[in-house]
Amino acid sequence: MIRYTPLAASLPATVPFVGPETQERTMGKGFVARLGANESMFGPSPLAIAAMARGAQDVWMYGDPEVFELRTALAAHHGADLENIVVGEGIDGLLGYLVRLIVGPGDAVVTSDGAYPTFNFHVTGFGGVLHKVPYRGDFEDPTALLDRAHAVGAKLIYLSNPDNPMGSYLDAATVEAMIEGLPDGCLLILDQAYADLAPQGTAPKVAHDDPRVIRFRTFSKGYGMAGLRVGYGIGAPELVQAFNKVRNHFGVGRIAQAGALAALADQDWVTFVRAQVVAARDSFGAVGRANGLVPLASATNFICLNCGQDGAFARRVLQELGLRGIFVRMPGVAPMDRCIRVSLGDAAALAAFEAALPEALKAARE
Amino acid sequence: MIRYTPLAASLPATVPFVGPETQERTMGKGFVARLGANESMFGPSPLAIAAMARGAQDVWMYGDPEVFELRTALAAHHGADLENIVVGEGIDGLLGYLVRLIVGPGDAVVTSDGAYPTFNFHVTGFGGVLHKVPYRGDFEDPTALLDRAHAVGAKLIYLSNPDNPMGSYLDAATVEAMIEGLPDGCLLILDQAYADLAPQGTAPKVAHDDPRVIRFRTFSKGYGMAGLRVGYGIGAPELVQAFNKVRNHFGVGRIAQAGALAALADQDWVTFVRAQVVAARDSFGAVGRANGLVPLASATNFICLNCGQDGAFARRVLQELGLRGIFVRMPGVAPMDRCIRVSLGDAAALAAFEAALPEALKAARE
Repeated sequence: MIRYTPLAASLPATVPFVGPETQERTMGKGFVARLGANESMFGPSPLAIAAMARGAQDVWMYGDPEVFELRTALAAHHGADLENIVVGEGIDGLLGYLVRLIVGPGDAVVTSDGAYPTFNFHVTGFGGVLHKVPYRGDFEDPTALLDRAHAVGAKLIYLSNPDNPMGSYLDAATVEAMIEGLPDGCLLILDQAYADLAPQGTAPKVAHDDPRVIRFRTFSKGYGMAGLRVGYGIGAPELVQAFNKVRNHFGVGRIAQAGALAALADQDWVTFVRAQVVAARDSFGAVGRANGLVPLASATNFICLNCGQDGAFARRVLQELGLRGIFVRMPGVAPMDRCIRVSLGDAAALAAFEAALPEALKAARE
Repeated sequence: MIRYTPLAASLPATVPFVGPETQERTMGKGFVARLGANESMFGPSPLAIAAMARGAQDVWMYGDPEVFELRTALAAHHGADLENIVVGEGIDGLLGYLVRLIVGPGDAVVTSDGAYPTFNFHVTGFGGVLHKVPYRGDFEDPTALLDRAHAVGAKLIYLSNPDNPMGSYLDAATVEAMIEGLPDGCLLILDQAYADLAPQGTAPKVAHDDPRVIRFRTFSKGYGMAGLRVGYGIGAPELVQAFNKVRNHFGVGRIAQAGALAALADQDWVTFVRAQVVAARDSFGAVGRANGLVPLASATNFICLNCGQDGAFARRVLQELGLRGIFVRMPGVAPMDRCIRVSLGDAAALAAFEAALPEALKAARE
């Protein structure tokens, strides 16, 4: 009776990620440690919290649909111009707009098998055809991505660097070389969600006006405001302007703009968080090692712990951790799914993880 | 070089609304009274403000992608089931998702000429063909909407009740009769953004599972949280479920869910706001009358003031008000554009409007 478009009718009713709240409702109890969604347990800058509380007083007003102040500050932060910056409802929202602008039914898109499911959700949602290349070890493979893009005439390539879900990264020169190898008319989406937490030298030098690349950044990870929903893109003015054709113009609200602006101004906080994350990589890795798991090198606020067997075993470890109040996730594709993926938390979360892991492993082995 | 879809390439780079901040930047000074966007100057419940401030502490976590607590509370509020409720990034966001689900290139959609531009933006943005029928006086015309829908085989009809931009309303029985007259396979979008401020008897009785209608409500108007970006739809479970195929699952953030939940629980505040709005209709109307303008009856938090001449004159009044620090908007289509549209504000805003209006009218007449 409801006449959906043929495309909409054909889409599955799946979701990219099941939220921890859903699992909590199923279990009938809450998680003790929330280490599955790569949120920042170190939280946002106190100055940003104060700005959001003040923003709540002003929330009777719509946010500026041009997001002028925040875009101006972001442009200054990156040495770009206002016309290079688009702000949206998280990278998720921006990926949706970008795919809508570029991808129609049958258009080819290349990504890595096991990379970000929400990007795939958008491509499928607009009728695009996903071509997936395997990871090379625990790294995305630029050569394979480019080769496939040339072969299928891709309009988009997706690359996250540092990588999610593996935590690995390609150095700047590798990504810069990849950009030079892009097929004509193929846009590289460089998802830099974790760039604020990565070592020096991860971010490639890209001219802000380069029409071959759009870089996405977020306030969800290093800035610790996943629940605020503010991401941004840096790209050529023509492409940035094109978002205005399709975006929800008032979609980034008053509190969101105020919080992001204050967070951006407090780079000391990001430095503090980065130090916490570096320390937590060691301490969470040590807990893994003490239990016979092998931590993978990470340039992000999470680590993959190699459980040493197949995906079925790692999934049991994940489930047993969940039953013990520890929310984690894991890569979805072999052989990366030998790992569980643990977001790096504070001392209390570490203690909870340390307490639960031996029992969870024992149960998973039974 | 960037290969947009043919549809995206064809879209204009227009925006549905220019924000007041853009005008302020152009003028080089701020507005004294912000009476153009139908925001609620009476603000949100203090309990909601407190909940948002608390939410800022938790904003390191993503919001629940199922929006379970808020949807549960909304279902209880409306006597519906959880499966009848979809929450999104304002009605604007939900309209975008709905149009995407239903409207493909060439599909027919019917609305009133002069009704909500953002809906038209979405229809055009997905390649739909808009068929517009005139208002009947200052009212949307159900008969004309239905006749056109039958004639063109429309998949969607848009009706806002109470109406924006005119403030008029159709009684419940009229809308109920309209639903009975819908063509098979034509979905009625009933935009009830202003329903919380309307007189008793405005909201039609609709079975929550009725697949012929989806009703949209918002926390932007009566609840006073336009800058939070929370709207919701009430509809048949199948249609509500379909939003999961395309929506930004994490798009309604932590603070947004917390604020909306607290606001919904404080119905006394909505009652208080409603009383303020009713009183302000009289006081703003009286200022109009004292200056020779005729206020139209309103069921919303704004009033149209008939300036007694054509659209060009009303536009001059609007501009002269703007120069004097008063932000208002106006209907875009004749003959409704004989009016300016003034959002109802507090005593300070009333005083500012009262001070500016005589001079603005004088300047507009020169």
